[in-house]
Amino acid sequence: MIEQVEVVGFDADDTLWVNELYFRQTEQYFCELLAPYTNSTTALEELYRTEMQNMPLYGYGVKAFILSVLETALRITSGQLPPAILQKLVEAGKEQLSKPVELLEGAEEVLNALVGRYRLILVTKGDLLDQERKLRVSGLEHLFHHVEIMSDKKPADYQKLLSHLDILPGQFLMVGNSLRSDILPPLQLGCYAVHIPYPIEWLHEKVDEPIVDTRFYTATTLWDMISLLP
Amino acid sequence: MIEQVEVVGFDADDTLWVNELYFRQTEQYFCELLAPYTNSTTALEELYRTEMQNMPLYGYGVKAFILSVLETALRITSGQLPPAILQKLVEAGKEQLSKPVELLEGAEEVLNALVGRYRLILVTKGDLLDQERKLRVSGLEHLFHHVEIMSDKKPADYQKLLSHLDILPGQFLMVGNSLRSDILPPLQLGCYAVHIPYPIEWLHEKVDEPIVDTRFYTATTLWDMISLLP
Repeated sequence: MIEQVEVVGFDADDTLWVNELYFRQTEQYFCELLAPYTNSTTALEELYRTEMQNMPLYGYGVKAFILSVLETALRITSGQLPPAILQKLVEAGKEQLSKPVELLEGAEEVLNALVGRYRLILVTKGDLLDQERKLRVSGLEHLFHHVEIMSDKKPADYQKLLSHLDILPGQFLMVGNSLRSDILPPLQLGCYAVHIPYPIEWLHEKVDEPIVDTRFYTATTLWDMISLLP
Repeated sequence: MIEQVEVVGFDADDTLWVNELYFRQTEQYFCELLAPYTNSTTALEELYRTEMQNMPLYGYGVKAFILSVLETALRITSGQLPPAILQKLVEAGKEQLSKPVELLEGAEEVLNALVGRYRLILVTKGDLLDQERKLRVSGLEHLFHHVEIMSDKKPADYQKLLSHLDILPGQFLMVGNSLRSDILPPLQLGCYAVHIPYPIEWLHEKVDEPIVDTRFYTATTLWDMISLLP
């Protein structure tokens, strides 16, 4: 049981709504278009390498992703790529930015069950405009006391958020699917964290070492998470 | 003389540091690369059309701009564009994201002169990560009480900011180079606004009608702006 918590932060992508799946679909399409030039494994490895290289400059989000997709397509085809394929990849990015927002099971109900008892905040990273759009479309916006869209989710970013909202680490619980972004940084600051794994996870968000921390919890679903609270 | 003001908001791009010039340089490079296919006027018109079409999806900022540059290049060359040119355009975008931050004259001194007397806030739009980078590199970050990076600068965005910071419209003065983004929306809410025109302006930010408002001022430089305050 997690006592003392007053504020619950929720990650958005793959915690409250579907996200990574859409990246996988675009990647799949990218592999199909590139199939005459290289196999899927190489295509995806090269894409990941490009994304990691571009991270300091582009950051997270769909626009960054598509720019890396285009760059990778250009590189691994050694200048042989028909422009029509690039056009299709640009279109695939736009399609991804226009996807409907599909809430994960229980998202709305669980937030509604918590809203009077805790201050709920949304803590997400990625494209500012895209995250705002998803939140608006989600129908969940009114349930949040505060919304923070960050360029990254490092301990310093969480520290800034806690200071800004005048919250002590022991009063804050973060809920999310990414050990790297949602769980480890808050734990490091002395906050509570509940990990709700999502079946599809980006390689970049994976953490290998087991987490040992008395403030760390795992839940199978959002509903499970509620039972950890008093 | 502007009385009663307690909080001064500063736009960043082309108010505190150089920005539009870098877009113009990339546009120039785009025109040169496309010269075998079309003239500069058409190239720029088509680019602007693409940018406006993509605005609801991509928003503002360099990544959005480069995606529109690539899309325009692909479209106006009807599939004839050598991939090497696209590669150069991707690189041009990265270069733009790595530009040094060149402060406009007086930026640091004027902020330093105001910092004890007013709460200073930075109000900017564009890529979250890129704006954060520029602010960090600028050396001005410590002078701001609050930094707001918005996806857009419509009246509703300013209203949200005023509510969030608990500021009455009559206590807020906004300073910026864009009539459309920095001046008209705050005036509409009953705030004060000082326009400091910058010689290079994006077509999208232009406003044709003259502004008649007792809370509207124009200054030639940041230094001039100070003399409007008590």
